Amino acid sequence: MSERFEPSQKSRLRRLHQRGSHDKDVLYPILDAGLVAHVGYVIDGQPYVTPTAYWREGDHVYWHGSSAARSLRAIQKGIAVCLTVTHLDGLVMARCGFNHSMNYRSAMLFGTAEFVTDQAEKLRALDSFVERVAPGRLASLRANDPQEVKATAVLRMTIDEASAKIRTGPPKDDEADLAVPAWAGVIPIRLVVDAPVADPRLAEGFAAPAHIERLAGAGTLDQAMLQAAAELYPVAAG
Amino acid sequence: MSERFEPSQKSRLRRLHQRGSHDKDVLYPILDAGLVAHVGYVIDGQPYVTPTAYWREGDHVYWHGSSAARSLRAIQKGIAVCLTVTHLDGLVMARCGFNHSMNYRSAMLFGTAEFVTDQAEKLRALDSFVERVAPGRLASLRANDPQEVKATAVLRMTIDEASAKIRTGPPKDDEADLAVPAWAGVIPIRLVVDAPVADPRLAEGFAAPAHIERLAGAGTLDQAMLQAAAELYPVAAG
Repeated sequence: MSERFEPSQKSRLRRLHQRGSHDKDVLYPILDAGLVAHVGYVIDGQPYVTPTAYWREGDHVYWHGSSAARSLRAIQKGIAVCLTVTHLDGLVMARCGFNHSMNYRSAMLFGTAEFVTDQAEKLRALDSFVERVAPGRLASLRANDPQEVKATAVLRMTIDEASAKIRTGPPKDDEADLAVPAWAGVIPIRLVVDAPVADPRLAEGFAAPAHIERLAGAGTLDQAMLQAAAELYPVAAG
Repeated sequence: MSERFEPSQKSRLRRLHQRGSHDKDVLYPILDAGLVAHVGYVIDGQPYVTPTAYWREGDHVYWHGSSAARSLRAIQKGIAVCLTVTHLDGLVMARCGFNHSMNYRSAMLFGTAEFVTDQAEKLRALDSFVERVAPGRLASLRANDPQEVKATAVLRMTIDEASAKIRTGPPKDDEADLAVPAWAGVIPIRLVVDAPVADPRLAEGFAAPAHIERLAGAGTLDQAMLQAAAELYPVAAG
């Protein structure tokens, strides 16, 4: 994959561009490693930032919510959104305050969000979200009923523009500061998945199936999400 | 603490309000457990959502960045922002797609951001950010020089309105679905801090000081941030 998004004023990287990219092969692994995005939109000039679970299919990002939610009602008309995904990877401790930083991967997407109104496509999208998080899970579930589908709004955004930023590695102190008697380095941070906790109402002895063991056994949520994406979109992710 | 923010149309909780609150004693622990916020603002009608490190002091939230950054230049005029902090605590696996959910704590703040222009206050704020993350660290650092301070913009927002949402616990399946042969439960998620990795340029044998050991030893970033906040703002947090 070597495609990239053409930046406009909106998404052009201005600072520290050695850390930035508009390339899909940088952007999509950041998206595919995540589950929660922060979606920004404007109502009457006021910005709103809502955390939401999302998933990517090709050059589209999907999310969902209650049909009654303010954020979704506003978006219904086809609203400009900025959707940002951020992974915090470490605290960078330097020898002066100014050089302190964070290691992270973030993707900022621009596009117009619209409702998925076609019923078949909506059902497909909702099912594919379950599978995207835990491939193999859908078959074990009770299918969504029409009332549930009606109560759920599914949003789709074509990614029009996007930029990624990544910082890795140790602090970048000036040579002159290396003599400062401060500890310097990185404190790594990981979003860890722990062992599954069964619902108290689950039948006794009901073992966690393979799709749950795989998810919880991935170590980090990043790895779990990347593994699921690779399983589902072997070509698209390639 | 029993103060609360008066909600307007902007922040009023409309859905699932049993999970929501406008109370400071719910909101502030969510803020104090975090390091990265997503700040939303509007330029020419277009929403932007930028991940940024932040910290709270009383009813104010601070963040900083390059004086040259687009986001900060736009905010300079005193711009309406929505600042959202989200902690993902678990994946909630239910017996139908509709009842799947996430356990999380999130705070959505509304206010107007303005630059801290007073030089002494700016220096104080930058220093207090270092201490907020790792109390005791500042004394070991080389002080920021005037060029560095000039290159850094410090933003302050008075929290005018805010709402918190929290979900905890197992899936809330309908009674009728308990017979569905699907595994149900929660996969817990934690933002873990790992052992510090020394800068390759650090003098050999330079042991991590107490403030680093405390941070990295806290287990999770939430705990590290809450401990630091309790140490710094023993009254304000009480």
